[in-house]
Amino acid sequence: MTKRLLLKTLRLMGADPVDVLIEGGRITRIAGEIPAQDGDTVEQCAGAIALPGLVDAHAHLDKTLWGMPWHPHAQGKSLQQMIDTERSLRHELDMDAARQSARQVTLALSKGTTAIRSHVDIDTDHGLKMFEGVAETRARFADVMQIEIVAFPQSGMMIRPGTVELMDQALRDGADIVGGLDPCGIDRDPKGQLDAIFGLAEKHGKPVDIHLHEAGELGAFSLDMILDRTQALAMQGKVTVSHAFCLGMNDTARVNAQLDRIAALGVSLATTAPASRPVPSVAACRERGIAICAGNDGIRDTWTPYGNACMLERAMLVGLRNNFRADVEVAWALDTCTTDGARVMELDGYGLEVGCRADLVLVEVPALSEAVTQRPARRLVISGGQIVARDGETLGPWQSA
Amino acid sequence: MTKRLLLKTLRLMGADPVDVLIEGGRITRIAGEIPAQDGDTVEQCAGAIALPGLVDAHAHLDKTLWGMPWHPHAQGKSLQQMIDTERSLRHELDMDAARQSARQVTLALSKGTTAIRSHVDIDTDHGLKMFEGVAETRARFADVMQIEIVAFPQSGMMIRPGTVELMDQALRDGADIVGGLDPCGIDRDPKGQLDAIFGLAEKHGKPVDIHLHEAGELGAFSLDMILDRTQALAMQGKVTVSHAFCLGMNDTARVNAQLDRIAALGVSLATTAPASRPVPSVAACRERGIAICAGNDGIRDTWTPYGNACMLERAMLVGLRNNFRADVEVAWALDTCTTDGARVMELDGYGLEVGCRADLVLVEVPALSEAVTQRPARRLVISGGQIVARDGETLGPWQSA
Repeated sequence: MTKRLLLKTLRLMGADPVDVLIEGGRITRIAGEIPAQDGDTVEQCAGAIALPGLVDAHAHLDKTLWGMPWHPHAQGKSLQQMIDTERSLRHELDMDAARQSARQVTLALSKGTTAIRSHVDIDTDHGLKMFEGVAETRARFADVMQIEIVAFPQSGMMIRPGTVELMDQALRDGADIVGGLDPCGIDRDPKGQLDAIFGLAEKHGKPVDIHLHEAGELGAFSLDMILDRTQALAMQGKVTVSHAFCLGMNDTARVNAQLDRIAALGVSLATTAPASRPVPSVAACRERGIAICAGNDGIRDTWTPYGNACMLERAMLVGLRNNFRADVEVAWALDTCTTDGARVMELDGYGLEVGCRADLVLVEVPALSEAVTQRPARRLVISGGQIVARDGETLGPWQSA
Repeated sequence: MTKRLLLKTLRLMGADPVDVLIEGGRITRIAGEIPAQDGDTVEQCAGAIALPGLVDAHAHLDKTLWGMPWHPHAQGKSLQQMIDTERSLRHELDMDAARQSARQVTLALSKGTTAIRSHVDIDTDHGLKMFEGVAETRARFADVMQIEIVAFPQSGMMIRPGTVELMDQALRDGADIVGGLDPCGIDRDPKGQLDAIFGLAEKHGKPVDIHLHEAGELGAFSLDMILDRTQALAMQGKVTVSHAFCLGMNDTARVNAQLDRIAALGVSLATTAPASRPVPSVAACRERGIAICAGNDGIRDTWTPYGNACMLERAMLVGLRNNFRADVEVAWALDTCTTDGARVMELDGYGLEVGCRADLVLVEVPALSEAVTQRPARRLVISGGQIVARDGETLGPWQSA
């Protein structure tokens, strides 16, 4: 019989204080007062607000330079330049994917993240090296971080022959999801690329998550082709489109029609809510029941100097990008980093109810909105029933070199 | 003779380590090694990076609810709704401007801000009460926080008769700058309002700083009228336009022509770099030598639940909004919160050179960019030669109730 963990006086999502009992990695009781028994581990929570574990539904665990010397950013800004810069820097810098992904997982735990969907580069230069490194990290942290791996053809599929075969291999070896990006912009062959992606999905019975940076009508065209295939293969609920900047374009009638189709097909969206690009409207997605989750994308890598793995900061950025001010709206921003992420990742037993997996983040703020707007250090992070971080620091067993 | 303050081993803007001597509130010596003398206060800085004091060049010290109970945000989103909500809430909530502005100054010191330009509401409901409160705070913190007060007709000038007379009184009583907002959108009388504003400026010999939220062609029209008056009154270097969302519109030719005129007239811009609105491009301003400074705008007030008075966070938001990634670009974002703010506020002796006023912020990061991207707690904040905050906490004398 495992030891009981008793949390005293915490406010679930800002509600009135309760005690919460955790046994065998699950929440087994919630009540006004739960008496401690001999041998219980008891944590006094002093009225802190508890959120469910944060979900980073769009990450790149193999890319971060966290813990490595500062890398001066001076590459160009086109997508192709950033892709090429990274692929060559992987050789020059000592970018070990197992070590770096572990560092990011340690950091993410300290910030209260308990589930990550990570795209992982697969290309003909590096083969499956990054996939294998992140898979190693996934195994090491399996008890406390739920990691999904997307086999991601960052450098293109059709323009780099051999990539599809490597993705096929990764999916055999344990990648969870078929990735893709910009069928027009990068591969110059939308039919070829999307047929290959959905072909892999059908063959392996896996979901799809495609990066779509293409803007305006070009992106809308590619999106239509993605939706066509989702419909043809009856992949309702199994397709995510990441970024989908085209859904931020000004042609509201066109965007609304696509959103309606996305809702009907059960396609989900992932956003990072960048300030410098058009983005899908979180409110417009919610109105239609579309799951729109958020992710930190790359943090402190060769693409961007920003990022610290904090999903409460991402919730703030989602809120600012969507001009969310009212408390109910700030809660929507938080949803993109919690429940909507869990919905997209199909996490088992996610939430703050009896029977749920015990993934909780405690923050000392008077009101729920302030978890997002102020983002204080996490007082306590519990994942799978284990205390993994305290006062902003990940505990010993989950630290990384 | 005042006590000497000797800072050992700090990296000015990330350069090689030096020692810095501070006497009489000024930097008097910078050298590889400066030996301590008896009676010196010596601070070991352990290679921390020193920035000049941060400048919040667009704030609203009379509006914050910092330190007060959480206020649920549920008002509408139109400018007029937010203005009206606030004016009535000032009566309902206990919004004492002296107390609240002091709280924000205390908070801002802890984050390394040493100069603030604050717009302060003046309206016919509340008269000069907010101005008097913020003036009290300005006097109390005079040694450590350089505060400029803008007499700001938040509720309109022409639509609320009596406002111009109140602004006139505030300028007699020590307000530094003539404020304004949206001559079309709020006052519905651009000629009347701008003539009144520039009339007050001429009468009192004071600069002007006008909020311009008006978008697209409407804002461009109002902006042209502001530039016309700047030219007619030869107010080069004395006019700031805050927000200037119209300069973010898609008509590049129109925007560039206005930017050229802004540069020629020495008009400066203040931005908060909001993610949900069009904004002037920092790069386009820099190319033309236009001073573009940044501000946190209102923090945790009836308008917005966001904000924590941190100007390094604002620099990050400026960087994200402008898609700044290269180190040189991140430094531009930082400039908006440091040197450009000092230029707009015409701060005397600003900088990190011998002879400058000793306003320094120390952050423990390996590279300058990371001051912006990671925003760690400030190790030490020095203002006017005095240590005012340490490890993220403002010291006793400058704390507020």
